[in-house]
Amino acid sequence: MSTRYAYLGPRGTFTEAALQAALRASGEDAGSELVASPTVGAALDAVRRGDARGAMVPLENSVEGSVSATLDELAFGAPLVIVRETQLPVTFELLARPGTELTDVRRVATHPHAEAQCRGWLAEHLPGARVLPASSTAAAAAAVADPAGTYDAAIAAPLAGAVYGLRSLASGIGDNTSAETRFVLVARPCEPAPATGADKTSLVLVIGQDHPGALLEILTEFAVRGINLTRIESRPTGGGIGDYFFSVDAEGHIDEARVGEALIGLHRICADVRYLGSYPRADGARPQLRRGVSDVEYAQAQAWLARIRDGRA
Amino acid sequence: MSTRYAYLGPRGTFTEAALQAALRASGEDAGSELVASPTVGAALDAVRRGDARGAMVPLENSVEGSVSATLDELAFGAPLVIVRETQLPVTFELLARPGTELTDVRRVATHPHAEAQCRGWLAEHLPGARVLPASSTAAAAAAVADPAGTYDAAIAAPLAGAVYGLRSLASGIGDNTSAETRFVLVARPCEPAPATGADKTSLVLVIGQDHPGALLEILTEFAVRGINLTRIESRPTGGGIGDYFFSVDAEGHIDEARVGEALIGLHRICADVRYLGSYPRADGARPQLRRGVSDVEYAQAQAWLARIRDGRA
Amino acid sequence: MSTRYAYLGPRGTFTEAALQAALRASGEDAGSELVASPTVGAALDAVRRGDARGAMVPLENSVEGSVSATLDELAFGAPLVIVRETQLPVTFELLARPGTELTDVRRVATHPHAEAQCRGWLAEHLPGARVLPASSTAAAAAAVADPAGTYDAAIAAPLAGAVYGLRSLASGIGDNTSAETRFVLVARPCEPAPATGADKTSLVLVIGQDHPGALLEILTEFAVRGINLTRIESRPTGGGIGDYFFSVDAEGHIDEARVGEALIGLHRICADVRYLGSYPRADGARPQLRRGVSDVEYAQAQAWLARIRDGRA
Amino acid sequence: MSTRYAYLGPRGTFTEAALQAALRASGEDAGSELVASPTVGAALDAVRRGDARGAMVPLENSVEGSVSATLDELAFGAPLVIVRETQLPVTFELLARPGTELTDVRRVATHPHAEAQCRGWLAEHLPGARVLPASSTAAAAAAVADPAGTYDAAIAAPLAGAVYGLRSLASGIGDNTSAETRFVLVARPCEPAPATGADKTSLVLVIGQDHPGALLEILTEFAVRGINLTRIESRPTGGGIGDYFFSVDAEGHIDEARVGEALIGLHRICADVRYLGSYPRADGARPQLRRGVSDVEYAQAQAWLARIRDGRA
Repeated sequence: MSTRYAYLGPRGTFTEAALQAALRASGEDAGSELVASPTVGAALDAVRRGDARGAMVPLENSVEGSVSATLDELAFGAPLVIVRETQLPVTFELLARPGTELTDVRRVATHPHAEAQCRGWLAEHLPGARVLPASSTAAAAAAVADPAGTYDAAIAAPLAGAVYGLRSLASGIGDNTSAETRFVLVARPCEPAPATGADKTSLVLVIGQDHPGALLEILTEFAVRGINLTRIESRPTGGGIGDYFFSVDAEGHIDEARVGEALIGLHRICADVRYLGSYPRADGARPQLRRGVSDVEYAQAQAWLARIRDGRA
Repeated sequence: MSTRYAYLGPRGTFTEAALQAALRASGEDAGSELVASPTVGAALDAVRRGDARGAMVPLENSVEGSVSATLDELAFGAPLVIVRETQLPVTFELLARPGTELTDVRRVATHPHAEAQCRGWLAEHLPGARVLPASSTAAAAAAVADPAGTYDAAIAAPLAGAVYGLRSLASGIGDNTSAETRFVLVARPCEPAPATGADKTSLVLVIGQDHPGALLEILTEFAVRGINLTRIESRPTGGGIGDYFFSVDAEGHIDEARVGEALIGLHRICADVRYLGSYPRADGARPQLRRGVSDVEYAQAQAWLARIRDGRA
Repeated sequence: MSTRYAYLGPRGTFTEAALQAALRASGEDAGSELVASPTVGAALDAVRRGDARGAMVPLENSVEGSVSATLDELAFGAPLVIVRETQLPVTFELLARPGTELTDVRRVATHPHAEAQCRGWLAEHLPGARVLPASSTAAAAAAVADPAGTYDAAIAAPLAGAVYGLRSLASGIGDNTSAETRFVLVARPCEPAPATGADKTSLVLVIGQDHPGALLEILTEFAVRGINLTRIESRPTGGGIGDYFFSVDAEGHIDEARVGEALIGLHRICADVRYLGSYPRADGARPQLRRGVSDVEYAQAQAWLARIRDGRA
Repeated sequence: MSTRYAYLGPRGTFTEAALQAALRASGEDAGSELVASPTVGAALDAVRRGDARGAMVPLENSVEGSVSATLDELAFGAPLVIVRETQLPVTFELLARPGTELTDVRRVATHPHAEAQCRGWLAEHLPGARVLPASSTAAAAAAVADPAGTYDAAIAAPLAGAVYGLRSLASGIGDNTSAETRFVLVARPCEPAPATGADKTSLVLVIGQDHPGALLEILTEFAVRGINLTRIESRPTGGGIGDYFFSVDAEGHIDEARVGEALIGLHRICADVRYLGSYPRADGARPQLRRGVSDVEYAQAQAWLARIRDGRA
């Protein structure tokens, strides 16, 4: 029986490509069934219900920023945890039905974000074409694939070409060639994979009453234990302008002593802390630990404390 | 000759309502011409070119969060400053052509964000209706107003009903009745209005090389001078995952000593600081200053320093 | 068999009075033998050797400051711990042999510190007397008691009058009537008395290489756990000007979670930490704990961490 | 007419040697008259009254620690400023009248601190000698010089040998050969010598109501401007146990922007700040400035602030 994974669809999205890459990397691609979900929320709910073992969703993009839907869906509702992250370059292609040439292209379908990221190329190579909005780049490709449709080409992920039987008229047409998207594979709460030494831990932090310096206090809980943050986002709680929660990624693994102690500190001072998982970093970068924060140094200090508490000096 | 102001259109948006309210409040509504712009960027560029004296754009919403386009457009390109802020409750109405009754409504047009915020009401009162996406709530209202169109009703701002000659079938249909949006009126760099004692100062802060603790350093520059932040957003610089700038609102006015000293501190440690204006708070809330940070205390300390530097003990 | 306690002598010092008061308070005065030691170091060495169960020594005086000999003797050599603290007002008396009247007093013996603290009274009441230095106030009293001696009176503690058979010519002759001295009872390393909720913990902290901000780091380890310091002294290590260690008293007991965690933090970042004991405060003052630092809140946070580490969310 | 300088006497002290060295270094030794004062307070009062242009007093010793009398005398009374610092190795000699040989020495006079620092040498070379206390090492030398006296030798500074016509029986007899004392030359308030780039600034800081974290706040005022402290001492205010002021030396000169801003910050948050002078460091060590705290960077930031305050972006 195959293992089912949900992803933000429709078929042919960058997210599907990220899920395929992740399963290939872990050797799970053979026995897995990939199911497209219409929204991030739907993909996560499939996991919450047990209909899927995991869900791949986009978390942030180096051009557009965070994906609010993902941050908010993970912050509220039944708890889920991130078990893996995948980072992919954003490579846009101009896809058309076989037989269409670049000079034939008059009407281009794509998602507004993709249009924004290919504006330079379009101005140079298709100055006369009209760009029409689709709900996703994959939906645009699907619409182009429909022979009864009214579009000549779509801007979409390479995968969409394969999925919908389209031909690439041009590759790498994004203006920012270093653009990339970070995706996360989300599962039901479970013990994390063992620490690799190059891990991240994701958290949702809710400050209770808004008091001056609360964010500084939070950052100090990390800093005093030598933990660097790789991402911090403020999101509205829905309670009114000025009422925020924070979504953060910290270097390190929950099983490491410094991370555990920082979590205890956050739990003590925040109105709420939601743990969103510890997982290996996609880039494999190991933190540069300053003196005194390694597990060995924590263990030595704890042994010393036990000794002096017992009066053994 | 009338003074021209741009706003994020089309006609009938919440943003137009905010602009009208702001001009009414300052008594400028009589002689002003309001011009709808298709995008935030277009509205700001009208100001940059001198085609408009100011532009009203949305900055953040208590449900959806920050408006990325506004944060990014203000952070890059020719400098602009915020001269006023306006905060409005988000009140959705179901608008239809005269003659349409609630029981006739089958097809509802609106922007996806508005749909998300009225999901509860729709499920209860229009369980059988189909909701179709429009590029804005005002565009939805315009489409409904078109007798040749295929929509029965639009979810939009009350102003859109007046603009497009529609009738309200239901008011206050948002699920979160405390939802509000914060808009800012943006102008070319100019001397700020005098400090009122209840002001905000907006900034864009770019940390140079990403080093651990850089955000903590930034917050400390504010905290050591007793300045509270009311908003902090991280946004990608476009340089890759993990490369951010910060958009912040701080309590206080650039002409106040503690704010000036904090700005000097930020300028010294950040790779770049962009000043986005000092302006009165929409809510009129005055900061609770701790001992030692008022202008009077700064002036006394400066006089003392001058004395001892001169050897007068 | 009696229990032996050492104190900084000779007989009749303020330190002996402090030891008597402490033993009376704990009901141990009956079965105890009090032994005068010539120096702080000698008193502590008697404990180290096992010749005394404890030693009472002065730690600080509200006029003269810290007693360097005590700080240094506790920081180096075989470890000892403070098990009790006693705070006594400094009450000076003018003591003479029976038969001597105030008008007879020409030559007054006392310790230079005592002379400094009674200067006002001496100028007013004994303007013509000559004050001669003794090695301690008790030694001055002993010299006065010697009928073959050349002194008419001594400035010393009330106890010295009783010890040496002298009569008080004037009481409370110190210029600063609120002067007080803090004494500590020191023992060999042992389990501390249980936490009372109003305790102090004393420490010696050695910063390794002198790096800017090291003291700030140390204070942050306390502050982040809501622990206030009641005393901090820098003392030379003997390695050269600019090379210091710190002697500190912190609010709280080593068995309290926040104190234990702070000690672990100090152990991780300092070149050396020496624990000098947890003991009830003489003034019984309880710390004002901020939110999140009580043992209950620590226990809740630890239970939460254990749950999420196990994948139980 | 000669310029008069006071010093902590009597003649032949280490302090006199420090004053001679300082005046020689500045070429003022020819026209200066050096006057011994019996106490630190008397030396400083000579300056306060205008009887001396300056006073040389000891501030701290690498073995004994701070000289409390100096810290307290500078903190209270009419303000004075440090204009120069001198650091000298502590070199003890065994001095005797001509004709005395080491084997003749039975009774040695010296100050108790000096005895403590030569204990090892004495045990090895003069195991049978008796050491008797004098009020200073110079007073000991003077007593030995008196042929009617009862001492065979004195432990004192080399200068004392020259002053009192004694001969050195042994040199460098201190146990800690790296021991050194730091002296300061104090004057009436005056403009400081220009910044050299390797300066210190001395301060007395009084925290008003004792509140948790007050010392952390003070250190943060320095740290946020990249200023390192080279010394921090707590001293009792005389108001009771637990009531302290701080005596600190900071790297930098009052005319430097970062130091001026830190002083303004301290003045705003402390109950009292007393400036004790900016002067060149004896060791000539220049601070390692982190990014953003040089005078050039301050000037650039101030020019930028002036521009944006004027609306010039």
